[in-house]
Amino acid sequence: MNTQNLVDPTPASTDPLDRFYAVIPAGGVGTRLWPLSRAAAPKFLHDLTGSGSTLIRATFDRLEPLSGERVLLVTGDAHREAVCRQLPEILDKNLVLETEPKDSGAAIGLAAAILYMRDPTTIMGSFAADQVISPVEKFQAAVREAIYTAATGKIVTIGIKPTHASTGFGYIRTGEPLIVEGAPSAHTVVKFVEKPSQEIAEEYLASGDYNWNAGMFVAPVELMLRHLKANEPGLYEGLMEIAAAWDTPDRIAVKNRVWPTLPKIAIDYAVAEPAADAGDVAVIPGDFSWDDVGDFAAIARLSSAKEDKNVKVIGEGGRVFTEDSTGIVVTDTKRVIALIGIQDVVVVDTPDALLVTTRAHSQLVKKAVDGLKARGDTDVL
Amino acid sequence: MNTQNLVDPTPASTDPLDRFYAVIPAGGVGTRLWPLSRAAAPKFLHDLTGSGSTLIRATFDRLEPLSGERVLLVTGDAHREAVCRQLPEILDKNLVLETEPKDSGAAIGLAAAILYMRDPTTIMGSFAADQVISPVEKFQAAVREAIYTAATGKIVTIGIKPTHASTGFGYIRTGEPLIVEGAPSAHTVVKFVEKPSQEIAEEYLASGDYNWNAGMFVAPVELMLRHLKANEPGLYEGLMEIAAAWDTPDRIAVKNRVWPTLPKIAIDYAVAEPAADAGDVAVIPGDFSWDDVGDFAAIARLSSAKEDKNVKVIGEGGRVFTEDSTGIVVTDTKRVIALIGIQDVVVVDTPDALLVTTRAHSQLVKKAVDGLKARGDTDVL
Repeated sequence: MNTQNLVDPTPASTDPLDRFYAVIPAGGVGTRLWPLSRAAAPKFLHDLTGSGSTLIRATFDRLEPLSGERVLLVTGDAHREAVCRQLPEILDKNLVLETEPKDSGAAIGLAAAILYMRDPTTIMGSFAADQVISPVEKFQAAVREAIYTAATGKIVTIGIKPTHASTGFGYIRTGEPLIVEGAPSAHTVVKFVEKPSQEIAEEYLASGDYNWNAGMFVAPVELMLRHLKANEPGLYEGLMEIAAAWDTPDRIAVKNRVWPTLPKIAIDYAVAEPAADAGDVAVIPGDFSWDDVGDFAAIARLSSAKEDKNVKVIGEGGRVFTEDSTGIVVTDTKRVIALIGIQDVVVVDTPDALLVTTRAHSQLVKKAVDGLKARGDTDVL
Repeated sequence: MNTQNLVDPTPASTDPLDRFYAVIPAGGVGTRLWPLSRAAAPKFLHDLTGSGSTLIRATFDRLEPLSGERVLLVTGDAHREAVCRQLPEILDKNLVLETEPKDSGAAIGLAAAILYMRDPTTIMGSFAADQVISPVEKFQAAVREAIYTAATGKIVTIGIKPTHASTGFGYIRTGEPLIVEGAPSAHTVVKFVEKPSQEIAEEYLASGDYNWNAGMFVAPVELMLRHLKANEPGLYEGLMEIAAAWDTPDRIAVKNRVWPTLPKIAIDYAVAEPAADAGDVAVIPGDFSWDDVGDFAAIARLSSAKEDKNVKVIGEGGRVFTEDSTGIVVTDTKRVIALIGIQDVVVVDTPDALLVTTRAHSQLVKKAVDGLKARGDTDVL
């Protein structure tokens, strides 16, 4: 295959669902969930909500009815073993291990390139490994709509209807309805906008024209690569070179040579935003509840764990005693933890590090990580 | 020696200081200092103030200029090794090990009886092993006055001038001045009173007639035993039987046989209060600062440990990171502890148990101990 000129493909199957391939990028430490989440045990490897599944396992299970075994996973070399333990179904050829983190442009771009090499008519769907979604049926319905819309030649993002004026997410400005068979809620996207101020967020919420950008999108791999080539030709060339070698004995050698040279750029800048400006992006407003479990306040909110009096306790081994207290305890140890007369507390207990904060300060946990890094306490990060 | 009739002794030395023997009862778990202080590692074995000395070592060092090697220590069998590590100076004959706790009447009574058997003219001084006192020179001056006063035939308590209307201590109602050479501040004691209500405590403080009862007293052993015999004849007989065997090969056998049969009673009821009613008790009002380190708020107050921003950190191995927080961290581990945006917090980190509370709730820590005991988590108590 000539990697310099993308082929405009003619699909073998007329049903776009048959051409769907799920991509799960599993990266990101989840710094605001330290010390539970850390480099060696990132957020997606934890069961943060007491569901009985790790986030990555739940992500896979949510997609499996749509994708079957057609799931490609991108993660760090260091997480290979843990990920394979969580997802024994992943085929070796579909396990993309990064030798070093290169941001989402390279991670998702490589997935697109590998899938393109195998079948240029593939429609990929990329879904982060560390989100909590329910009910799954509504999510799956939205993905189906996104696949049908993608088949018309769109990069389709699945937006989330805002429940409050969040300043923590980017937004998608929704345009006119699109007429797509099998996708009654498809709309054009006017543009993506960055995390807003509180005032602007209130306006967005009031207008009804904006959805949260959850980083989920579904697109023909060929269209993804076309935009990547136009915007980041260096990254595109490198990824295509690795992809061409992927299903050959040269996979490791080429990856090890090329990957370190790739630029770091988010997929939003490399593909999604320029594609929106070109009129190539659509949105399916998701009608399900969604959370990126960004901090311990989110865990307190989402967890189905039992409450001991007014304290939510997450972690199987926890021996927690509470008296006149409220908040959340996340425990990764078998230690006894006693809370006496303390309100709105967040206690996160791991074998080598302990965090004590409040729900209101959950967003500031990163400060501890930065501070510990600055003074060299990197063994617990 | 006839144990049935106490000898009214004629001392060999005319200087009462030569007849002084220090007694250190080292008992009491310090439940309000859980999980740091616990059955296996009671309060007196900890350096709670960051002084560099455990409380028991500091107690010994405070007394040593007065007593030299004349120190008798009463503690639980289980603490033998730890106590000997702290106080290698203690002579084997002066290490009184309880096979089971029998309250202060038996502990201090046995000390009195053993010392009486060796020299009936001994003046004993009993000082709990878990108090913080400074400056030591003023304490020693008060003990000297107490010894001179005891030599006139009194049980002499060293009271503490109240600094606030505490409801946590018993009080001593002070009477008329006594004329004693070498003891210019000696007064009679009208009576001991129990822990008062807040209102009564305010009255006591305002009157100037009351001192806190710190449980420190100095007395001729013969006088101690005379009152014990009058008030608790069964206890007295048992203790004299053990004491008679103490410096013989039968020590262990007799102790093991008799000790378990002894009644549990506080020395206050067995000796001090009836002696006060009989007019046999005097008080030296102590002009030093004193604290029984009753809870973590006291530790926060007393500790000379460095502050990390506004958090006092006690414990050598502590790797504590704080941001916008106030309070105290007591650590017995080498774990990283991060506090983010939490005020007035008390965090006590030990290998198998963690306490999170506030200074204002320090007195309620006992509730955790009771609760854990009730549900069978006794391994950490």
